[in-house]
Amino acid sequence: MSNLQLTAEGKLKHFLTIEGLSQSLLTEILDTAESFVNPTDQQIKKVPLLRGKTIVNLFFENSTRTRTTFELAAKRLSADVLSMSISTSSTSKGESLLDTIRNLEAMYVDMFVVRHGLSGAAHFIAQQTANHISVINAGDGQHAHPTQAMLDMFTIRQVKKDFSKLRVAIIGDILHSRVARSQILALNTLGAAEVRVIAPKTLLPAHVQTLGVSVCHNLNEGLQDIDVIIMLRLQKERMTSALLPSESEYFKCFGLTESKLKIAKPDAIVMHPGPINRGVEIDSKVADGPQSVILQQVSNGIAVRMAIMSMAMQPQGAI
Amino acid sequence: MSNLQLTAEGKLKHFLTIEGLSQSLLTEILDTAESFVNPTDQQIKKVPLLRGKTIVNLFFENSTRTRTTFELAAKRLSADVLSMSISTSSTSKGESLLDTIRNLEAMYVDMFVVRHGLSGAAHFIAQQTANHISVINAGDGQHAHPTQAMLDMFTIRQVKKDFSKLRVAIIGDILHSRVARSQILALNTLGAAEVRVIAPKTLLPAHVQTLGVSVCHNLNEGLQDIDVIIMLRLQKERMTSALLPSESEYFKCFGLTESKLKIAKPDAIVMHPGPINRGVEIDSKVADGPQSVILQQVSNGIAVRMAIMSMAMQPQGAI
Amino acid sequence: MSNLQLTAEGKLKHFLTIEGLSQSLLTEILDTAESFVNPTDQQIKKVPLLRGKTIVNLFFENSTRTRTTFELAAKRLSADVLSMSISTSSTSKGESLLDTIRNLEAMYVDMFVVRHGLSGAAHFIAQQTANHISVINAGDGQHAHPTQAMLDMFTIRQVKKDFSKLRVAIIGDILHSRVARSQILALNTLGAAEVRVIAPKTLLPAHVQTLGVSVCHNLNEGLQDIDVIIMLRLQKERMTSALLPSESEYFKCFGLTESKLKIAKPDAIVMHPGPINRGVEIDSKVADGPQSVILQQVSNGIAVRMAIMSMAMQPQGAI
Repeated sequence: MSNLQLTAEGKLKHFLTIEGLSQSLLTEILDTAESFVNPTDQQIKKVPLLRGKTIVNLFFENSTRTRTTFELAAKRLSADVLSMSISTSSTSKGESLLDTIRNLEAMYVDMFVVRHGLSGAAHFIAQQTANHISVINAGDGQHAHPTQAMLDMFTIRQVKKDFSKLRVAIIGDILHSRVARSQILALNTLGAAEVRVIAPKTLLPAHVQTLGVSVCHNLNEGLQDIDVIIMLRLQKERMTSALLPSESEYFKCFGLTESKLKIAKPDAIVMHPGPINRGVEIDSKVADGPQSVILQQVSNGIAVRMAIMSMAMQPQGAI
Repeated sequence: MSNLQLTAEGKLKHFLTIEGLSQSLLTEILDTAESFVNPTDQQIKKVPLLRGKTIVNLFFENSTRTRTTFELAAKRLSADVLSMSISTSSTSKGESLLDTIRNLEAMYVDMFVVRHGLSGAAHFIAQQTANHISVINAGDGQHAHPTQAMLDMFTIRQVKKDFSKLRVAIIGDILHSRVARSQILALNTLGAAEVRVIAPKTLLPAHVQTLGVSVCHNLNEGLQDIDVIIMLRLQKERMTSALLPSESEYFKCFGLTESKLKIAKPDAIVMHPGPINRGVEIDSKVADGPQSVILQQVSNGIAVRMAIMSMAMQPQGAI
Repeated sequence: MSNLQLTAEGKLKHFLTIEGLSQSLLTEILDTAESFVNPTDQQIKKVPLLRGKTIVNLFFENSTRTRTTFELAAKRLSADVLSMSISTSSTSKGESLLDTIRNLEAMYVDMFVVRHGLSGAAHFIAQQTANHISVINAGDGQHAHPTQAMLDMFTIRQVKKDFSKLRVAIIGDILHSRVARSQILALNTLGAAEVRVIAPKTLLPAHVQTLGVSVCHNLNEGLQDIDVIIMLRLQKERMTSALLPSESEYFKCFGLTESKLKIAKPDAIVMHPGPINRGVEIDSKVADGPQSVILQQVSNGIAVRMAIMSMAMQPQGAI
């Protein structure tokens, strides 16, 4: 897996999962992202790094936020972007995914940004695609969402500077969350003191401890000593699958309110990958409150995706 | 309202409604638009005014013509454009309009062009959005469509030079028309001699005179002495709502034919915001005839929208 | 027809059909396309030939491959591209095709790339549109698909250098194929030694010989002495129309397998316009085999469309 993502020289070629990436490479991504943010006004300038390159957004699942930030990041890098919503495309003529990929790569494109409902889809495309093409995983099934994890790391570092003393809680549906899986890997690689998952037993994978986390089933207990709180989005479709009692019941037990937030450290920050279910996993007062960095995460998504795209597109050397 | 649209120095910041804008500001928009048109070949050059800026088309209602002209205008200004058709977007995941706006503004965008079925939507977004973002109203419910009104004013000035002696007739469904509301305000602000609305009683708002118009219920009478004829599009869905008898009946009474056109001044021009219902509100011979400036209106839409976008994006100084 | 496509000086103005175009003009297209391909790495550089020009993709039929290559070709020429999927546009408000065209041309666009289900649609638009606009036919009904034919010619020339000694077989549903019609015209104009169509009688037009082809109803016989094999896509909807027995029956008689391929000349190349129906008209081993140039065709689509677009946009002089 790690081999597939890296060149022989250990440079980034594809970005599919946090697994197998070193601390120094993750730090290089964060540093590169930082170089795109103007320290004076916090704006991002348009740079010509990928001028003349063509990036294809291959979204088999719909996602306004992720597709938009990838498109904006590509444009800030001066690349040409082609957005393809695949359900309405040639696959309706019966063409296979592989044939679609083969055809696109024949069109001299340089990068695929892939979101797909099946775990492993981005890996499959990276394995199959022509050598000059980079693949970025923008979320695959319940497996990984590594650019989301990296923008979360960027946001945490922006506020907390150092990972080594941080206790981070991830709260909610760990079982189905590709975001959580990538966050846990990134936090452990970057040396966080503790990653604590807080969830009802029905929403935790079996043997979750093997991921390198401590486990808690009670929000009030779990929030103690925590520096960073990461709320996960509750997929409402889980409700009907008998894994959860009801939204209000869930909110009562695992929803983050102002009073519960007080259990954590006074300078704890609150994160969420969005879109938020207000009043289900998080109270509006917390989401919009002073400890929330949720919108900062969205902003950071541009710079972090610019960093990953420009690094993967120049695997031979420095940027 | 006027305060929201203007900076402390009285410069354009948002463009939401004609209401509260001065004659000199409307004239500045028309003059700026004129500066984008090459006097030799009437073409519009690509200019670098908004290079590196990102404009988001937020269309909650579909509109080929308006969306396309805004997109073309933005590209002529060298801006990056992101077109979002919101019905198919994140709101289907249950995110509120406000959260969508918050997320987009966190992505370093610079302008929202908003079309929405609810009156007041663009105002709401302008009130709520971050300070560095400009909002352009591309049509909100039955309230306003100010860029359409301004391109109409530009077209009138192009042909007739001076507003002060003009008698303008607006014909059709005044009651439901955001276009008419904005046109009436613009014509009165620019000093037209008379704005006359011609419509059946069922398609006029109560107390319509308070808008600063004269009223007529008969097309033959109403067209006398008229310099500019503005036909409104008949929304066919009104037919079923018992406000109107039938299309052919409407055409007989309020449709503009060649013989009726002769009642107006011989050099009267015919306008229509499009798309045209041929044979419903206007006869094809008139729509395609020598007095029609309907396609000129479409052309002028590019330059006028370029003017409004570039002025709103540079509220501090001259262009 | 030829007059409509050419200026008075015989330069390309529209590109609607191969019919009426001279050998020298087709050769000029192929040579121009070649100039866009970097001989060292076979990549295509971004060139500023159409900077500031606006190209509108008017797709009334869906087509990922063709729309995408046109969009990429336009971007490599530095043009602005507007992609309109017309079924979801203004025509749903009851506007006619002609009004849509009139409105778009009023928006200062420079080129229409048209795909339409009706034969003659691109011609109609070229006849009706303003003088400064070029029209490219991207496929109209069962009539023509001339850019596909030209990229096929480019691919053939790339491998075989000279047309004059080539025997080319076109295999499959000739009757309904706009691709085949354009290929036959192009091959004959470029002086191929023989164009042979191979199909069951139900899938051949009446009097097909008048197109300048030899005819064969048996694949084993027809493939003898052949240098270039062009497979056509089998439209599965023909199956239900009683023109064909079954997919497996069709594959048995007219599907291209490795053993059948051996009947042709040993250096014969295999072409297909895509998307492929694997196991229906072509075996995967052949489609992905060493004699297949199917993906080369896709690549060449970019350069050939760049050539046609840039030539049509500059009818007065050299590029």
